[in-house]
Amino acid sequence: MGLLGETLKAINPSNKEAIKSAWNRIDNLTKPIGSLGELEEISAKMSGITGKMYNKINKKNIVIMCADNGVCEEGVSCCDQSATATVTNNFTRGITGVCVLAKYAKSDITVVDVGVNEDFNNPKIINKKVVYGTKNMAKEPAMTREEAVKAIEAGIEVVDKLVKEGYDLFGTGEMGIGNTSTSAAVLSVLTDLSVDVVAGKGSGLTEEQFVNKKKVIEKAIEINKPNKNDIIDVISKVGGLDIAGICGCFLGAAKNRVPIVIDGLISSAAALCAYRLNNSVIDFIFPSHLSAEPGAVYMMKELNLKPMLNLGMRLGEGSGCPLAFNVIEAALETMNNMATFQEAALNSECYVDIREK
Amino acid sequence: MGLLGETLKAINPSNKEAIKSAWNRIDNLTKPIGSLGELEEISAKMSGITGKMYNKINKKNIVIMCADNGVCEEGVSCCDQSATATVTNNFTRGITGVCVLAKYAKSDITVVDVGVNEDFNNPKIINKKVVYGTKNMAKEPAMTREEAVKAIEAGIEVVDKLVKEGYDLFGTGEMGIGNTSTSAAVLSVLTDLSVDVVAGKGSGLTEEQFVNKKKVIEKAIEINKPNKNDIIDVISKVGGLDIAGICGCFLGAAKNRVPIVIDGLISSAAALCAYRLNNSVIDFIFPSHLSAEPGAVYMMKELNLKPMLNLGMRLGEGSGCPLAFNVIEAALETMNNMATFQEAALNSECYVDIREK
Repeated sequence: MGLLGETLKAINPSNKEAIKSAWNRIDNLTKPIGSLGELEEISAKMSGITGKMYNKINKKNIVIMCADNGVCEEGVSCCDQSATATVTNNFTRGITGVCVLAKYAKSDITVVDVGVNEDFNNPKIINKKVVYGTKNMAKEPAMTREEAVKAIEAGIEVVDKLVKEGYDLFGTGEMGIGNTSTSAAVLSVLTDLSVDVVAGKGSGLTEEQFVNKKKVIEKAIEINKPNKNDIIDVISKVGGLDIAGICGCFLGAAKNRVPIVIDGLISSAAALCAYRLNNSVIDFIFPSHLSAEPGAVYMMKELNLKPMLNLGMRLGEGSGCPLAFNVIEAALETMNNMATFQEAALNSECYVDIREK
Repeated sequence: MGLLGETLKAINPSNKEAIKSAWNRIDNLTKPIGSLGELEEISAKMSGITGKMYNKINKKNIVIMCADNGVCEEGVSCCDQSATATVTNNFTRGITGVCVLAKYAKSDITVVDVGVNEDFNNPKIINKKVVYGTKNMAKEPAMTREEAVKAIEAGIEVVDKLVKEGYDLFGTGEMGIGNTSTSAAVLSVLTDLSVDVVAGKGSGLTEEQFVNKKKVIEKAIEINKPNKNDIIDVISKVGGLDIAGICGCFLGAAKNRVPIVIDGLISSAAALCAYRLNNSVIDFIFPSHLSAEPGAVYMMKELNLKPMLNLGMRLGEGSGCPLAFNVIEAALETMNNMATFQEAALNSECYVDIREK
C-alpha cells in the first residue's frame, strides 16, 4: 500500500467527547447561548480536532500548489499559460495578494511546484513536479491515474513535513492558469450539476470566451467519461495537478489531526475530492470566504460548510485563508478567555437557547 | 447652535479625487481586476476618508454605549434589567465577548454610561449619564427631545476626545437590556417596514414572549406617532440613550474624518439615524458582520452596505468590530504592499474587468 492508501486508512473522525465538553463550556460563557454564532462552532470543532478544550495556534502555513493545465490551449483563460510560472516565482518575492495577506496574519507560505510547465531555479520553490503540466482534457485524460496519485501524495508529503516543523494550522492555495475550468469539471462530475450552473468567468473572460469555456468543459466530461464514484479517475481525467496536490494536503492534515482551511473554488474542488475519498476529512476542514465564482456556493453546500467571510473575492492563491486564520484565532480566544456566568456574576437563566426555536 | 448642530454642519463627503487615485493603483496591482472584491472597496473608501493613497491604522477603539430602557417593564427581554449594569461593569474587567475579541485585534475599548439605571463607582466607566434609563415607550415617549440630543452629543464628545488621543479607527458597541426592541422600533419607523418583519428574539425569547415583544413595539409606535422625517423625534420617542449615543459616535467620526465600524442591530439603527441626519456620514462607515437578528438585513440594505463577515453572531457589545478591524487592516496591507503589474513582470491584459459584465 502506498502513501495515499496508508493515509486514507490512518484518518479517523474528530473527538466527539472533546466536542461535547467544549460545548459545555461554550454554553456557560457570559453571553446568550449561541450568540457568538460560528465562532462557537469553530471553537468546538477545533476541540474535536485536537482533543483539547483550550487551543492556541502556534504556527500557520498556506501551502500553494502550482501546476499548468493543458486545457489552456482551448482558450479557456484570458491569461497566457506562462503566467502560472511567473506568479509561482512571485510568491517567493512576497509581492502577490496571498503573500501580503499571509504576512498580515503572521502566516508562512509554502510554494510547491507540482507540475508547472517550466523549470525553476529558485530554492524557495519546493520541487514536487509530477509532469510539465497536464494534457488537454478536451482531447484526452488530463493525466494518468499514477500521475494523479503522485500529485496527491506530494500534498501529503508536504503537510507531513510541515507538521513535523510545528505548523498547527494550514491554508490551501494554488496557481494554475485554467484551473477554474478543471475545478468546474470536477464539481460538475461529482455533483451532477450542469457545467452551465457551476462554471464562471475565472480571471476575466468575455461573454463569448465564457460560452467557449463551458463547451470545452462539457466536451472534456463527455469524451473522458469520468466515473464519479472513483475520485482518482475524476481527478486524472478532468482535474489538475494543483487540485490533486491540494487534495493531498487535506488528507495529510486530517491524518495528522491538524486543522486546514479552504480558500476558493479550486481548493474547494480539492476538498470535495478529499471528502469523497474519506468522509472524516471534513472534521478537520474550515471554510474561509465565499468565492465570487458561481461554483463556490455549490461546493460549500456539498461540503456542508458555511463560509465565514463574504468579500466577493476571486483571486485564488490561498488569499482567503489568512483572513479566516484571524477569525479562527479570535474564536479560540473567546473560548480561552471569556468568563463563565459564575465568574461574571450574571444569571444565566435570562440567556436561553433560541437556536432551535 | 449646540454641538450637534455644529457637528452636522461640519461633516463633509469623502475625498472623491483620492478615491479615484486609489482605484487607479488598485487596478494596477497584480491580480485580475476586481478579484480582491470588498478588500478593494475598503482600500478605496479609506483613501476617500483620509485623502491619502496609503493608510495604516495606528490606534483602534470600540466605544460601548451603555443605557437602560424603560420598555423592559413590558417583558420584552428574558434578561433582568439589572444585567445592563452588571455587564457594563464586566466590560472593564476584560471578561466579556467584546473584551476578548478586542484584545485579539489589539483594540482598546471605551465604556460609556450614557444612561444606566445605576451609579457606578468605577473609574474605567466614562460618566455621560443623561438619565437613569429611559421611560417605557409603550406608555409615553422614551425620553425628551433634549435628552436625546444630550445623548447624541455625549457620543460626539467621546469620539472628539479619542481622536485627539490618536485613535484612527473606531468600533461601536452597546449594552442595554431591551435595546433590540428600541432598535426594531426605530428601523420600522424609518423604513416603513412592519414590526413583524424587523423584530427578532434578541438574547432569547420564547415564541410567546416574542409575540408580546412585537405587540409592545407596535404599541410604542402607535401611541407616540414618531415623525420619520424628524430623526430626533424618532430617537426620543421610540429609541434609546445607547442608540442616541452611538449615533453621536458616527457623527463625531464623520466630522473628524475617521473611519468607524458598525456592529449589529443596535449599532445599525444608530448608523441609520446618523445617515438620515447627514447623508455624508455613510462615507466614513464600514459594516462588520451580518447579525442574526432579522432586522439586520434591512439595515444593511437601507445603508447600502455589504457586511464582510457572515458568522451568525447576535451578541452585541461591539463584538463584531474587532473581526472587521482585521479585515480592514488586511485590505490596507494589499494596497500598501502588493506589487503592480510593472513591478511583477506580468501582462495586465490577461486580467480584464468582469465586474460590469
